[in-house]
Amino acid sequence: MAPLRESSGDPVLPDPPQGPLHVARARASFPWKELALFWEGEDTLRFKKAIFSALENDPLFAHPRGSRLSVEKYQELNFLRCKRVFEYDFLPVGDMLDSLPRVLALIECLGMYDWSLAVKFFLHVLTFGSAIYSSGSERHLKYLPKIFSLEIFGCFALTEVSHGSNTKGIRTTAHYDPSTQEFIIHSPDFEAAKFWVGNMGKTATHAVVFAQLYTPGGQCHGLHPFLVQIRDPKTLLPMPGVMVGDIGKKLGQNGLDNGFAMFHKVRIPRQDLLNRSGDVTPEGAYVTHVKDVGQRFSESLGSLSSGRVAIVGTSVVNLKLAVSIALRFSATRRQFGPTDKEEVPVLQYPMQQWRLLPYLAAAYALDHFFKSLFLDLGELQQGLLGKDRSVRQAELGREIHALSSAGKPLASWTAQRGIQECREACGGHGYLAMNRLGDLRDDNDPNCTYEGDNNVLLQQTSRYLLGLLARRGPGGARIESPLKTVDFLDGYADILGRRFEGSSPEDLLDSSVPLAAYEWLVCYLLRESHQKLSREKRSGKSDFEAINDCQVYHCRPLALAFLELTVVRRFHEHTHQPRVPPPLRAVLRRLSALYALWSLSQHTALLYRGGYFSGEHAGKVLESAILALCAQLKDDAVALVDVIAPPDFILDSPIGRADGELYKNLWTAVLQENKVLERASWWAEFAVNKPVIGSLKPKL
Amino acid sequence: MAPLRESSGDPVLPDPPQGPLHVARARASFPWKELALFWEGEDTLRFKKAIFSALENDPLFAHPRGSRLSVEKYQELNFLRCKRVFEYDFLPVGDMLDSLPRVLALIECLGMYDWSLAVKFFLHVLTFGSAIYSSGSERHLKYLPKIFSLEIFGCFALTEVSHGSNTKGIRTTAHYDPSTQEFIIHSPDFEAAKFWVGNMGKTATHAVVFAQLYTPGGQCHGLHPFLVQIRDPKTLLPMPGVMVGDIGKKLGQNGLDNGFAMFHKVRIPRQDLLNRSGDVTPEGAYVTHVKDVGQRFSESLGSLSSGRVAIVGTSVVNLKLAVSIALRFSATRRQFGPTDKEEVPVLQYPMQQWRLLPYLAAAYALDHFFKSLFLDLGELQQGLLGKDRSVRQAELGREIHALSSAGKPLASWTAQRGIQECREACGGHGYLAMNRLGDLRDDNDPNCTYEGDNNVLLQQTSRYLLGLLARRGPGGARIESPLKTVDFLDGYADILGRRFEGSSPEDLLDSSVPLAAYEWLVCYLLRESHQKLSREKRSGKSDFEAINDCQVYHCRPLALAFLELTVVRRFHEHTHQPRVPPPLRAVLRRLSALYALWSLSQHTALLYRGGYFSGEHAGKVLESAILALCAQLKDDAVALVDVIAPPDFILDSPIGRADGELYKNLWTAVLQENKVLERASWWAEFAVNKPVIGSLKPKL
Repeated sequence: MAPLRESSGDPVLPDPPQGPLHVARARASFPWKELALFWEGEDTLRFKKAIFSALENDPLFAHPRGSRLSVEKYQELNFLRCKRVFEYDFLPVGDMLDSLPRVLALIECLGMYDWSLAVKFFLHVLTFGSAIYSSGSERHLKYLPKIFSLEIFGCFALTEVSHGSNTKGIRTTAHYDPSTQEFIIHSPDFEAAKFWVGNMGKTATHAVVFAQLYTPGGQCHGLHPFLVQIRDPKTLLPMPGVMVGDIGKKLGQNGLDNGFAMFHKVRIPRQDLLNRSGDVTPEGAYVTHVKDVGQRFSESLGSLSSGRVAIVGTSVVNLKLAVSIALRFSATRRQFGPTDKEEVPVLQYPMQQWRLLPYLAAAYALDHFFKSLFLDLGELQQGLLGKDRSVRQAELGREIHALSSAGKPLASWTAQRGIQECREACGGHGYLAMNRLGDLRDDNDPNCTYEGDNNVLLQQTSRYLLGLLARRGPGGARIESPLKTVDFLDGYADILGRRFEGSSPEDLLDSSVPLAAYEWLVCYLLRESHQKLSREKRSGKSDFEAINDCQVYHCRPLALAFLELTVVRRFHEHTHQPRVPPPLRAVLRRLSALYALWSLSQHTALLYRGGYFSGEHAGKVLESAILALCAQLKDDAVALVDVIAPPDFILDSPIGRADGELYKNLWTAVLQENKVLERASWWAEFAVNKPVIGSLKPKL
Repeated sequence: MAPLRESSGDPVLPDPPQGPLHVARARASFPWKELALFWEGEDTLRFKKAIFSALENDPLFAHPRGSRLSVEKYQELNFLRCKRVFEYDFLPVGDMLDSLPRVLALIECLGMYDWSLAVKFFLHVLTFGSAIYSSGSERHLKYLPKIFSLEIFGCFALTEVSHGSNTKGIRTTAHYDPSTQEFIIHSPDFEAAKFWVGNMGKTATHAVVFAQLYTPGGQCHGLHPFLVQIRDPKTLLPMPGVMVGDIGKKLGQNGLDNGFAMFHKVRIPRQDLLNRSGDVTPEGAYVTHVKDVGQRFSESLGSLSSGRVAIVGTSVVNLKLAVSIALRFSATRRQFGPTDKEEVPVLQYPMQQWRLLPYLAAAYALDHFFKSLFLDLGELQQGLLGKDRSVRQAELGREIHALSSAGKPLASWTAQRGIQECREACGGHGYLAMNRLGDLRDDNDPNCTYEGDNNVLLQQTSRYLLGLLARRGPGGARIESPLKTVDFLDGYADILGRRFEGSSPEDLLDSSVPLAAYEWLVCYLLRESHQKLSREKRSGKSDFEAINDCQVYHCRPLALAFLELTVVRRFHEHTHQPRVPPPLRAVLRRLSALYALWSLSQHTALLYRGGYFSGEHAGKVLESAILALCAQLKDDAVALVDVIAPPDFILDSPIGRADGELYKNLWTAVLQENKVLERASWWAEFAVNKPVIGSLKPKL
């Protein structure tokens, strides 16, 4: 492959630096640059390189990491960096819709650097901007240039202190006053304060506030979005009637200012209702083209689905960074060996391989899933903008809703567990803040919660699947969907009759075997869930109760297994397509098989219970195949990391640097810390002010 | 039950404050004070109350929590608090050996307040102190009063930058120079710097340093402990030749100053070799009563086993705190409901019960296990002090080594996962630092690593079990051990022939059923591990390779299952003994059954694979029983938490306060934060210094 070069003449993919990792790289079975090109595409590689270089060359982006700064200092630095991103203008907003891969790359690059920065930037530009664009109408377009020039700064205020998951229960009110043609935004008490709102703590001048809309006479028309100015852009002081502040330190993402706001009868012009789904006339009449409240509600919350897809991507980035650090560490850290004299890299141990390599495979599998889902979402949004009211468009919306509602849980949990495993796999050095695994875990953690609690969201997906089964009924319509993720369910009865075929570990080294097992598993869980739900309802329980009683061992695993199947299928197809360059085929298929089998192995109990597996052999073969794939992939691990890891400056982990000079890098970083060798300022508290032992002894 | 009163007349167990949790408490099936008395004993309750009251009434112990302070400030405060604990002198060192339950209670109380404090205190008093006491001889006793009066401050320096798990590989040297009768302590390079040493960063004046002992002529006698002065107690400045500093911010426990040290030919008197297992004469001859190097090595590291037991306790405390916070939150947080008007506490959802109640049961089960293991350890140490050289004493040592080597992994992982589940179960509010779940997770995390990496440690336990099987052989000796944890293995062959008996969920509502299943499981995994290891060895692999190839799916689950069985068995016996007061029997047996079944359910795949389970029914019954127990325990959850939760001041979590005034407490805490409503100091960076969009645009 001819080396890719930038206009400057620099290679787009420079060779890794010399160092101890050279030995591990030399053992790889494939050319990593060719995989990078296949995986990312040339334009994306160039684009990412340009962003990474800009950040690396700008002193404003010099570390230390946020968790080692005070919250105040970190927020300031994060704002300055966010402003600088506007000066770089890597991807003008106008180009975003036409260049989805670049949008992906920009999110990934900023996020790899620091999620506080990425989230601050995208909450303003994409979440706030598109809420106005897609929930408002022509009269609101004037705000868009102000967003993109930083004249105003925005946030999206839905959640309240006492209501997160149940958004219908939101209690902020917006009463229309025809005498002044204004809405009066009001928080009845502190439980209804907006809370957790990103950018609201210190920065935002404007908020999209969700409130219950009341027209004169007292009729409530449900939740609607309003554009409310909360601070004066000239001073950043709060507007009259607005009590706004920062909610305080979080477990992570502390560069972002999450805030709260209480509104005391704040008046805003009638025009600042974002009126796409419903409007109020100057006289106070409510008008809408949407007929029922449920539909209006779901339209007004439509912009949330893209958030879930973005979180899939966020989680994947975190997992990529964590496995990069842990695998480079494991390839250079030596401990024990066949003799007392000779120690081997810990990656040589099957246990270490088994702890880490499945997460490397998961990073690839979920990365591909995320990119494909992002393109699907792009198609959906094109349709929304084109006011496509076709059945296919509606079906596509439902399918993507189901995929993102389980995709976010699967990706965020996989990343959370993977990062923790990486932390532990790096031993004590993984527990040092400078090595970044803590920041990754803490920054990833809210992915399990925001944009919908994972366990609550999974219900959306199981409901979708159960609905398909119900629509099919006896002699009903075919089960099919625009993206074909559920088409296999048409063979439901046949699939349930299948049994495991695979007598040796070799039979399992291709992902087609776990793929078939997953189809059976999803059908089995779907049947079990359906039967359980019917039983609960027949026993006289309300729908609310019956559904709640089916979650733990039925609907929840159903949703997760369906999503795992989808990830496995897409990755299987991607790695088995003819356009995969021959030198990459073996390694990609191994990754595909490892992710699929490892993921499937969590469900072995169900495979046995439902009769898909029988006898001791099946379970043992599955385990042997996982270990065999780990052994096959261990020599490719460092090269696979080179494909997904950002440059050292961005990865920012002494134990994860590309040269593998583990201890030199660590030692240098330790000595660069603040006051590392200095005597403690409070030394006299030990040396001079001695305690009198027992002088305060309490009576016991 | 008559109310317990302190000498002051205050009740030892005050009634919980009135508030929204009152309703939940009123539904409990048992009197919580009676359980507290049964669980802790009266003396311990009084002792804990005295400690908690002292801390609460002392302004030095006023919060905010450490994670919200700068590292420097936190370390200072933590030192001052540590000094204050000496002034309180809750438990004079001389009384510790005679009052093990009070030692436990002191660790628990200080740890519940803050692990940075507890670890700092106990590393100095117990780890450093007992290393000198048990590794030294009469000539070192003079140091003990200096420790207890804070004249010197100590640390225990074993781990180096490049050697943690493999302590044999440690490279610090101690060459004896007969001309001056000194040892020369030396670090050959920075990879051999002592690293991670608690208290070394800023405070310690003295260190127990492990180094390879060389006598004149160059013979190496292996690792020995030396007492090395590293700082001047009058100034806290380093001693000549010692480069000592702080390793920097960690993911948690940042009140503790973990440090590093490099020694440049530091000379110490001959007498400062801690010479219990080996000594050097003035002329330079090495003398020892211990014959082989292996035994000497294990004697010199003997003090590590008690560290592992302590970590079991540490982990249990963290789990107790986390479930207390999450369950009180869940009993007061309402979200969704059967109608739009009515919302129910999230603890009413089977999903939330299933996420949290097994961890509540685990907190009780592991707490009991820890306490019993601590008493076993006390027996062992009495024997060591009395120079007991009996076979029983040696067997007891091996058994406790096996129990603590798997107990630490099981407890630390259960706590780590449990805290993360609690964090997620509290949604966004769980992600706010002030609610403490982040600190608990971060402070618990190193329990998975220090005193032996969990996965590495588990090998000790599986080796013990495989050794027992090998010793038994055909017609060999009975399998039995002083604590009887392995005696069941004598029925190995019979147990392997057992099959699951239980046809309805009701049959499983007692822990005797999972106990029987666990016995089968351990025997099955032992047989599988033994067979696998024999196969690997027969195939020509070295012992090193063969053992490594048996870890993932054999020895690792064997060690964990054995420990789970032991925890289940001890908790079963404790809850089924006749002296359990009748009003407590039902709830304790439910906890026992829930922990046992939930824990067992992780192994369902193996139960099927090995034929213990067959048919769909067994797996379903197991799931139904777990859900039934959750439903039975949900109304007892808040009262069960009242038994294990410390006072509000110590628990220090607005969402976990005993009154259940969730939102009032949260809101007050938010408003008390620093500069919460203030405009950001950098407001002009937004309002005045506007960016020129695209002014820095890179060429792409």
